Amino acid sequence: MSRSSLIAQIKEKKSFLCVGLDTDITKIPEFLKEYPDPVFEFNKRIIDATADLCVAYKPNAAFYESRGVKGLQSLIDTYKYIPKNILSIIDAKRGDIGNTSDMYARAFFDEEASGMGFDAITVTPYMGNDSVTPYLKFEGKWIILLALTSSVGSKDFQYLGTPEGTLYEAVIKKANTWAGADRLMFVVGATKSTEFTDIRKYAPDNFLLVPGVGAQGGSLEEVCKYGITKECGLLVNSSRGIIYASNGEDFAEAARAEALKLQQQMQAELEKAGVI
Amino acid sequence: MSRSSLIAQIKEKKSFLCVGLDTDITKIPEFLKEYPDPVFEFNKRIIDATADLCVAYKPNAAFYESRGVKGLQSLIDTYKYIPKNILSIIDAKRGDIGNTSDMYARAFFDEEASGMGFDAITVTPYMGNDSVTPYLKFEGKWIILLALTSSVGSKDFQYLGTPEGTLYEAVIKKANTWAGADRLMFVVGATKSTEFTDIRKYAPDNFLLVPGVGAQGGSLEEVCKYGITKECGLLVNSSRGIIYASNGEDFAEAARAEALKLQQQMQAELEKAGVI
Repeated sequence: MSRSSLIAQIKEKKSFLCVGLDTDITKIPEFLKEYPDPVFEFNKRIIDATADLCVAYKPNAAFYESRGVKGLQSLIDTYKYIPKNILSIIDAKRGDIGNTSDMYARAFFDEEASGMGFDAITVTPYMGNDSVTPYLKFEGKWIILLALTSSVGSKDFQYLGTPEGTLYEAVIKKANTWAGADRLMFVVGATKSTEFTDIRKYAPDNFLLVPGVGAQGGSLEEVCKYGITKECGLLVNSSRGIIYASNGEDFAEAARAEALKLQQQMQAELEKAGVI
Repeated sequence: MSRSSLIAQIKEKKSFLCVGLDTDITKIPEFLKEYPDPVFEFNKRIIDATADLCVAYKPNAAFYESRGVKGLQSLIDTYKYIPKNILSIIDAKRGDIGNTSDMYARAFFDEEASGMGFDAITVTPYMGNDSVTPYLKFEGKWIILLALTSSVGSKDFQYLGTPEGTLYEAVIKKANTWAGADRLMFVVGATKSTEFTDIRKYAPDNFLLVPGVGAQGGSLEEVCKYGITKECGLLVNSSRGIIYASNGEDFAEAARAEALKLQQQMQAELEKAGVI
């Protein structure tokens, strides 16, 4: 999906919501267990209930991989079910040398090879350039590179001072020499809103994928105050807060209600920033 | 597998060879294509031909994931075929927040959940503590953390100066506060032999998994000069140099011949260092 299509979708839906499909088979409603693939059935209903309110879906690969072949089949079926006009992100956080990154790109971008052709993949920067750029060979696909993450472990290395600023600043500066804002986004944790100001110095145009709103404690208002741009430039993810809003037969309606709340807040922020 | 069992195996086989199963379906001998699972058939024959010469096997997850469900099945069958007295390493380079790392641990360590129960996993450090420690919940399993890698991209961030030394030194120092040398190894690229001296300051006892000997240009002699310890402390990986030694019907014999060459060099190094 092109940057202009993504922006058009944001304006049309008045939303920059990404719904995280971190679907844990032990947390989904009991009645779904009767279906041949309870995880896919869950995701299907979540997608049906939220597709008009969000601009991206982001399955977290780990939750599917933990169930072996069955889980991978749930992931493939979920990928296929995500409407093609919505950005599909595989949250895989891969990162390896060039010939291996080629294989990961095939695993997640090449539908003929693996059954999956996501629009975007999350990638970890530790191994540098040749762990990132192989994904760019796939025309029109996005890399979403980890910069500043939202969990406690982010303090261990990402804030270390380097001659290029903190490590996460060094990552942003360097990666922006590898690809433009039409192919490269960054993951920036929402619990660190004041740091958005710094990040926007080095990434004025890149979309930022922001996890951590909701369950991880981030505030949407803070994120927008420092991070929003004239073209929006944000995708804010919510996973648990939406998909586990209810554990009963009404889980999809409850998910929709939570997504709607976020969409309405997002609409207000988009208006405030003059995006719409 | 415990550290003492690993060391005993090294002494018995006079080898610290890890065979990397980076099996690419487009590179294996043509005649194997007639088998129901050519990749598994290839790995099976490589394992049969080399099991007495190596102490570890390391399938690279990307090569299997690139083929979707079929590839995952090849990986599961390969895992099951690796003899239980040989260290099985999944080269997955995962790294994510705590609840997601729990899922990756299940994917690769919990055979009941996923079909795979590897002894060790490679992990990337960028997200810090909570992306690493969840794997330790699985008794007796190993984490192999990326420190200094061997490809060109390693220069982008790993050498950045920080208050704790270079980034890779900071990673080693910090990670050694999370786990002991009985559970934690580091990946250290073999093209940087002189840096082993520095690394051994901070990781005197940890096993180091060394890729990059052979195809990536590293020298076994150099690695041992600076990296070997009284308990060996090294696992040296070779992938392409062994598994693609021939593309004909003799591929397994050719692989054995290459593995044997390395084992003999390793035996000499082990003797020189007084390990055996």
